Amino acid sequence: LDEEAAAAARDRQSRMTKPPGSLGMLETVSEQLAGLSGQCPPPMPEPAALAVFAADHGVHAQGVTPWPQEVTAQMVSNFLAGGAVVNAFAKQVGAEVCVVDVGVAAHLGDAAGLVPRKVRMGTADMTQGPAMSREEAVAAIEAGIETARDLVAAGNRCLLTGDMGIANTTASAALIAAFTGASPAQVTGYGTGIDEQTYAHKVEIVRRALQLHRPDPQDPVGVLAAFGGLEHAALAGFILGGAALRVPVVLDGVIAGAAALVAQAIAPESTAACVAGHRSAEPGHALALEALGIHPLIDLELRLGEGSGAVLALPLVAAAVRALREVATFDSAGVADA
Amino acid sequence: LDEEAAAAARDRQSRMTKPPGSLGMLETVSEQLAGLSGQCPPPMPEPAALAVFAADHGVHAQGVTPWPQEVTAQMVSNFLAGGAVVNAFAKQVGAEVCVVDVGVAAHLGDAAGLVPRKVRMGTADMTQGPAMSREEAVAAIEAGIETARDLVAAGNRCLLTGDMGIANTTASAALIAAFTGASPAQVTGYGTGIDEQTYAHKVEIVRRALQLHRPDPQDPVGVLAAFGGLEHAALAGFILGGAALRVPVVLDGVIAGAAALVAQAIAPESTAACVAGHRSAEPGHALALEALGIHPLIDLELRLGEGSGAVLALPLVAAAVRALREVATFDSAGVADA
Repeated sequence: LDEEAAAAARDRQSRMTKPPGSLGMLETVSEQLAGLSGQCPPPMPEPAALAVFAADHGVHAQGVTPWPQEVTAQMVSNFLAGGAVVNAFAKQVGAEVCVVDVGVAAHLGDAAGLVPRKVRMGTADMTQGPAMSREEAVAAIEAGIETARDLVAAGNRCLLTGDMGIANTTASAALIAAFTGASPAQVTGYGTGIDEQTYAHKVEIVRRALQLHRPDPQDPVGVLAAFGGLEHAALAGFILGGAALRVPVVLDGVIAGAAALVAQAIAPESTAACVAGHRSAEPGHALALEALGIHPLIDLELRLGEGSGAVLALPLVAAAVRALREVATFDSAGVADA
Repeated sequence: LDEEAAAAARDRQSRMTKPPGSLGMLETVSEQLAGLSGQCPPPMPEPAALAVFAADHGVHAQGVTPWPQEVTAQMVSNFLAGGAVVNAFAKQVGAEVCVVDVGVAAHLGDAAGLVPRKVRMGTADMTQGPAMSREEAVAAIEAGIETARDLVAAGNRCLLTGDMGIANTTASAALIAAFTGASPAQVTGYGTGIDEQTYAHKVEIVRRALQLHRPDPQDPVGVLAAFGGLEHAALAGFILGGAALRVPVVLDGVIAGAAALVAQAIAPESTAACVAGHRSAEPGHALALEALGIHPLIDLELRLGEGSGAVLALPLVAAAVRALREVATFDSAGVADA
C-alpha cells in the first residue's frame, strides 16, 4: 500500500463536510483503495466484472451434500442463460458476469460468456489422496491470474470473486483449517443446507482429509494440491492478479475467504487488494476473515455463493470512493466545523 | 400486508435455483414487499427518492453538541449544491434527492430542489416546555404525508428517509425513551461525536425533559409536541404516507427509527412498509428497531444521518426484488434439486 496516498485519503476524510469518522467502515475502504492505487482520490471501482470459477470435487463421493454433482454444470448453463441469482444481482449493480470453467466434471462445449480453462475433470477425492497434482494447482492459479489480467485489460477497475462447485464448502473447510489451525468442527458449516447427520459426517470427512495430508501452511501449493478445489486455486490466482495490477478484489464468501488465505500464503501483500464483500453464514468464513484481518461490508445471512455477496457489496465500495472524490470540504462549502 | 402475495413470494423463493433460505434477510425483504404491494413479484423499488427533512432544535441551547446551530442551514445549502455525502451516495445508487425545510431556524429563500414547508423557526427547548404545539406537530406530520404523496405521484416507487438538524439525536433519544420505556442512558449516544463530559450532560438533559413532560406513548402527537423535532414529525408523516400508498419506505438511522415509532403509535400497520436501511452506532437506534420488529440491512458503524444509510441500502432492496422477478426456477432452468 502506498502510505502517502492512504494518508492523503485520511486527511481528506477529516476535512469533508461530515463528522469525523461518521462513515465508519467506508472510510477504511476509501483509504485502502487510495493506498492500493497510489492515488488520492482513488479511481472509481467501475466498471466491475465478476468471474465465477466453476469446478467439481472428488470429495462429493463421500456424501457431504444432498446436491448431485451434475448441478455444477447445470448452474453454469443457468449463469450463461442469465437465470441465476448472481445474474439478477449483477444486473442490479451494473457488473459484468463471466464464467470460467477450471474443472467442471462434464464437457460444457462452447457458449458465449464461458471461458474454457479446464485443468482437469474435477478433483480427486481428498480423503483418498491428493485432490490434484502440484502442477495442476499451479495451472489453475495461472488461469485465475490470466482471468484477472484479461478483465482489467478489457477496462474493468474492480474484480469480484464468484464460484460454483457442488461440495466446495468441504474443500474450503479443509483449506481454512490448514491455514488457521482451527479444528474441523470449527471450520465446517452447513453449506447450502444439510441435516445434522450429514453435518457430523462432513466434519469427519474434513478431519480424515487433514489427518491424511498433514498440510504445511508454508507450502500453499501443496495445501491446494491436497484439498483442492480447482476454483480455490483459480480464485487465489485471481486475487494475486488483481493485487499485482493494483485493482481492488471484492471477495464473496467462504470459498473466496479460503482462496484469499492461499493467496496470502503465496504473497502476503495480496490481502491489501482484498475487500470482504460479506460475511457468510459458514463458520469457517469468519475465521478466514479474522486471519486475513479484513472486515465484511455486508452481513445478511447469505449462504449462496456464486459471488452474490461480492456483487451486493460493490455499490458500497463505489459509494466509499465516490464520497472521497465528490464531497465538499468544510472550507469549500462554507460549513462551520465543530 | 397481503398474506396471499407474501405466501406466493415465499413459494417462489423455494422454487428458485438456489438452496432454500440462502438469500437470508433478502428473502424476508422480498416477501415483505410482495405483501405490501399485493403483487408477486412486487414492482421494482425504482425510481427511488430521498427526502431530507431539515429542522432546528431549541434544546441546542443546552449545549448537547459542539456543532453550531447554523450548520443545519449550511448543510441544507450543501445538499442543494450536491456537495454532501448523501448526494454522492444518492448519485451512486441513482436516487433523487429533495430537501424539505420543515423548521430550519433561518430564512432559506428559494432554491431549486428545496421544498418550503417550514412550520416554525425551529422547536422550543424541550427542557423548558413543549418543543412545539400539538397543531404544529400535526402540520409537520402533514408536510411529511404530502411529501410522500408528491414523490409517489411523480413516479417514485421507493421512498428513502433523510434528515438534517443539529441536536436531533437528543430529541430522538427522548422520543425513543418515551415509546420504549428505556432509560435516558440506554437511548442516548455520542451523536456525531461528543466527549464524555458532554455525553453525561446530554443524558441528564434527556432525563430532565422526560421528567418534565411525563410522556404518554398512547398519545403520539403529544409526545412529538413535547420533544420534537419538526423533522421527526415530518418523517412520521412520510412513513404514514408511503405506507398508505403501499410504497416501501427505507429508513435511515436513529432519527428515522424514532419517527417510525411515532408512526407506529399512530397507525401500527405503517411498520409493514418500513425497511431498516442500516443500524447506526447510536444505542437508541437498536432499541427502536427492536421495538419496531425490523432488522437492519447494513451495519457499517455509520453515524452520519442525512439519509446515508437508507440510500446505501437501496441496491440491496432492489436486488432482493429483482431476484424474485428474474431468477429461474429449478424446473425452468433444468437444474436438479437437492
